Amino acid sequence: MTGMRIAVLAGGIGGARFLLGVRAWGLANGAEVTAIVNVGDDVTLHGLRICPDLDSVMYTLGGGSDETRGWGRADESWTVREELAAYDESGWFGLGDRDVATHLVRTRQLSDGLPLSAVTANLCRRWQPGITLLPATDDRVETHVIVDGAAMHFQEWWIRHRAELPAERFVFVGAAGAAPAPGVLDALGAADAVLIAPSNPVVSIGPILAIPGIREALAARRTVGVSPVIGGAPVRGMADKCLTAIGVPVTAEAVGRLYADFLTGWLVDEADEAEVEGVKVIRTPLWMTDETATVAIVESALAC
Amino acid sequence: MTGMRIAVLAGGIGGARFLLGVRAWGLANGAEVTAIVNVGDDVTLHGLRICPDLDSVMYTLGGGSDETRGWGRADESWTVREELAAYDESGWFGLGDRDVATHLVRTRQLSDGLPLSAVTANLCRRWQPGITLLPATDDRVETHVIVDGAAMHFQEWWIRHRAELPAERFVFVGAAGAAPAPGVLDALGAADAVLIAPSNPVVSIGPILAIPGIREALAARRTVGVSPVIGGAPVRGMADKCLTAIGVPVTAEAVGRLYADFLTGWLVDEADEAEVEGVKVIRTPLWMTDETATVAIVESALAC
Repeated sequence: MTGMRIAVLAGGIGGARFLLGVRAWGLANGAEVTAIVNVGDDVTLHGLRICPDLDSVMYTLGGGSDETRGWGRADESWTVREELAAYDESGWFGLGDRDVATHLVRTRQLSDGLPLSAVTANLCRRWQPGITLLPATDDRVETHVIVDGAAMHFQEWWIRHRAELPAERFVFVGAAGAAPAPGVLDALGAADAVLIAPSNPVVSIGPILAIPGIREALAARRTVGVSPVIGGAPVRGMADKCLTAIGVPVTAEAVGRLYADFLTGWLVDEADEAEVEGVKVIRTPLWMTDETATVAIVESALAC
Repeated sequence: MTGMRIAVLAGGIGGARFLLGVRAWGLANGAEVTAIVNVGDDVTLHGLRICPDLDSVMYTLGGGSDETRGWGRADESWTVREELAAYDESGWFGLGDRDVATHLVRTRQLSDGLPLSAVTANLCRRWQPGITLLPATDDRVETHVIVDGAAMHFQEWWIRHRAELPAERFVFVGAAGAAPAPGVLDALGAADAVLIAPSNPVVSIGPILAIPGIREALAARRTVGVSPVIGGAPVRGMADKCLTAIGVPVTAEAVGRLYADFLTGWLVDEADEAEVEGVKVIRTPLWMTDETATVAIVESALAC
């Protein structure tokens, strides 16, 4: 397997934990790993450009994430957020002090004219994630949610309103005119296998697939997906609310069918059954309880 | 004295402490106070627009300043700065976490198109300084220091290099084309007395005086200055290095002569002697040891 190249499409926390397993497998087997990460959740708040999914992956792989809370930095403090609230600046977003520094560096470099992919590479000089971390695109692609006929930013719907407002649909603003970031199509084209992390299919993987060129590149490779739904419920987060909003059942089978046009294989948990036309379905334990368990999932996917 | 109007030209910490006395005197005597504050120290670091003098005045009058350290916020923490250093972002500026929130609010409002005077008013809704706080100008005026024939920002010279590099001169970049902020000329024109706080004459009061129209407005009023030099040394800070750099002796007399064209009166400490042509010199204790002592200084100035 030495010299094998693996590309992974990933969102936030679920994607980050899956990538821990892919990295471990890659280290053990001499494989190069590239993660292509969702930017649809990115948002500008208090003038800071925040990239929650890139940061979740970067912090997790760099050993700086809070494993208990599940997002943001370990050993975090909240002074800046409290002070912003004292200025009547809404505090619904979890903006920790350590996190703020990341956003300050990113925001300044972006305003200096660097593309997000270059800024991400710069931030990774500190975090040393051990894989190549690419934003899906350098262009502005933002997931908006249509509620009562009006659009709101995904983060506002997801965090401020706890995904409780009825979503009519999701719009990936800017996606149609966006281009894959430098390195994305190269990584997909050179990949011996492409893995779809068990991330939210609607708002984590969906915005990546909406960028012209990516779906086609996946269809040309051996592409294996890992179901984010186990036993009829999302492994984490509120993916069920997103699936329901677009009229898709919360089942491993239904998610697999969303990807059917490009999947070679589809991993579902032993608790699930799935038939996806033209796709090899593998039943195997999908709980990422620890890195060993996750490596086993990666093994199964690569053996598909 | 009811209905009296007082305008004060001020820099940072010395100005802030003086303003505590002016505010107290004003409250006791029904006077309205407007502070016109230096912006020459303002700097953009890590993408944040920082206004050290406005913030010193706002925090001090709002009860939020660190009295022991002499600058910044009380009960401050330094997480953001430590994290920026971990990203190799130079940490020579004292950027506290509480302070960062102020700069975030200011930077965003400025980038939304608000002028600094409006942003300052917004920030003061939280701090309730009890006086009207105006930047000297809404235009970009920055004090640069010429060292070895090359310019560096005043903050870099002052804080990073501890004012130890030999300054050839000071340049107030942008001052010649700047206009007084809205309210400044009105406040000066309506003032029954204008006070010059015991701030650094070269880099705190100097940049205010460099804005066209202000020096002339002072000459038309009863204007009384308070010496920042006592017994041949600056009361605080490194004003002696600035005076020496422009070839002015570090004496109360020499500073008074810098202002001679517009002064009515000049307050020097009992330890000093001064003769300034055309200006009434008053000797009185000038140590602002507490608010009562400062109020006495204000009394002496207004009686001049």
